[in-house]
Amino acid sequence: MYNTLVRITYDGTAYSGFQFQANAPSIQEALEMALAVIYKQPVRVVGAGRTDSGVHARGQGANFKAPFHIAADKLPYALNALLPPDIVVISAKKVPDSFHARFDARRKLYSYTIDRADYPQVLRRLYSFHLPDPLDLGLIRKAARLFAGTHDFNFFQAAGSSVSDTIRKLFRVDVADYPADDLLVFYIEGSGFLYHMVRLITGTLIRVGKNTLALPEIEAALEGLNSGAAGPTVPPHGLCLEKVYYDSDD
Amino acid sequence: MYNTLVRITYDGTAYSGFQFQANAPSIQEALEMALAVIYKQPVRVVGAGRTDSGVHARGQGANFKAPFHIAADKLPYALNALLPPDIVVISAKKVPDSFHARFDARRKLYSYTIDRADYPQVLRRLYSFHLPDPLDLGLIRKAARLFAGTHDFNFFQAAGSSVSDTIRKLFRVDVADYPADDLLVFYIEGSGFLYHMVRLITGTLIRVGKNTLALPEIEAALEGLNSGAAGPTVPPHGLCLEKVYYDSDD
Repeated sequence: MYNTLVRITYDGTAYSGFQFQANAPSIQEALEMALAVIYKQPVRVVGAGRTDSGVHARGQGANFKAPFHIAADKLPYALNALLPPDIVVISAKKVPDSFHARFDARRKLYSYTIDRADYPQVLRRLYSFHLPDPLDLGLIRKAARLFAGTHDFNFFQAAGSSVSDTIRKLFRVDVADYPADDLLVFYIEGSGFLYHMVRLITGTLIRVGKNTLALPEIEAALEGLNSGAAGPTVPPHGLCLEKVYYDSDD
Repeated sequence: MYNTLVRITYDGTAYSGFQFQANAPSIQEALEMALAVIYKQPVRVVGAGRTDSGVHARGQGANFKAPFHIAADKLPYALNALLPPDIVVISAKKVPDSFHARFDARRKLYSYTIDRADYPQVLRRLYSFHLPDPLDLGLIRKAARLFAGTHDFNFFQAAGSSVSDTIRKLFRVDVADYPADDLLVFYIEGSGFLYHMVRLITGTLIRVGKNTLALPEIEAALEGLNSGAAGPTVPPHGLCLEKVYYDSDD
């Protein structure tokens, strides 16, 4: 078997998320359908992470065990010819048999894009959250620094989650301002994420920017003392999985 | 009657173009449906220009004669609440009774976006033409300068067009390179355009960039001597009507 890592970019608008679901279109299903055509047998795909319904990716990682060899530089073209235009495989490479796209992921980088124009920019509407309200960027940047590092993110996960270990490390939480394009982009990179964690942190930072949440409340939340500081969960279409990092990365 | 100029941005993906067509969705029809709800009677919309099926706009102009007054700063919100999310009115203002969005348009600026990434950028696929081939930007810029000014663009219109006056003036023909985003954007601004003229000029410039068309052939085409220099017509989804200029512009 030829264990293969592929990098995938997709527009999540039309999908229920990365992971297979019985009655809704998923990225995984589309990939497995294309792989079944190429390899003439079922091929199971393992993604680095589920992305939610409507969430996009520029650099999702996934692996599968191919029954026979196809050159790594040919495989993306073969797959893209079979995939719908909103899913594109951008690279493929052979990896050791033991490689697992989810367990071996070291870090993931997400972006969350805010459209700051007075009226929604229609050509960006599927990939950004329209929020024209004034925001205090200085305050947002101060709050972002509080999230960086290792914390218990118990309050920054979707209600009803039952993960036992809620400690995660964030390597990067910052905001890039593109005033010429009326865009604000949050970047959040971490060792791993709880369910809805990126969208909850982004929503929290937006509240700070609107001056409706004070920094000490975030500090208390990260010490497990203030569940009210987290959120709201911003909508999925502003979120994009930019990159998944593996030890094998060049 | 309150003659009103509106500026409109739209994603042309789902439309047959700006202008009303009996059996296909158009921007004009969507606008007229929203206006009919607001004014409780049919309201005819005049656009600055048709845009083709699949062509986008960031700053289309249109006017209509409203039967009663609605404040210019309220009207976009009222319309946007009724319009689908891929059409957004970004401004409205009262104009003289004689104002006509098409006849009074002085200049129009179009952009044409090329996606230069090795594989298509899926989050840009609806708004750019994927063309990863090497292009000689220096040659393209030299060729672009040939188009600027007043010329007979007879060879730079769709076959079968029957416009009698094919002389137009181009104020700007240039190319902006955004290597960090793997994008190349052509900007073409003129007093008016023949059918498919922007897409034919862009296609011509791309051939120059690929080194398959020499500059003297363009000069000959603009002197009416070489019909073979024009085109091909690049696909519509890379094209965007950026702005329509009126004398009344601030």
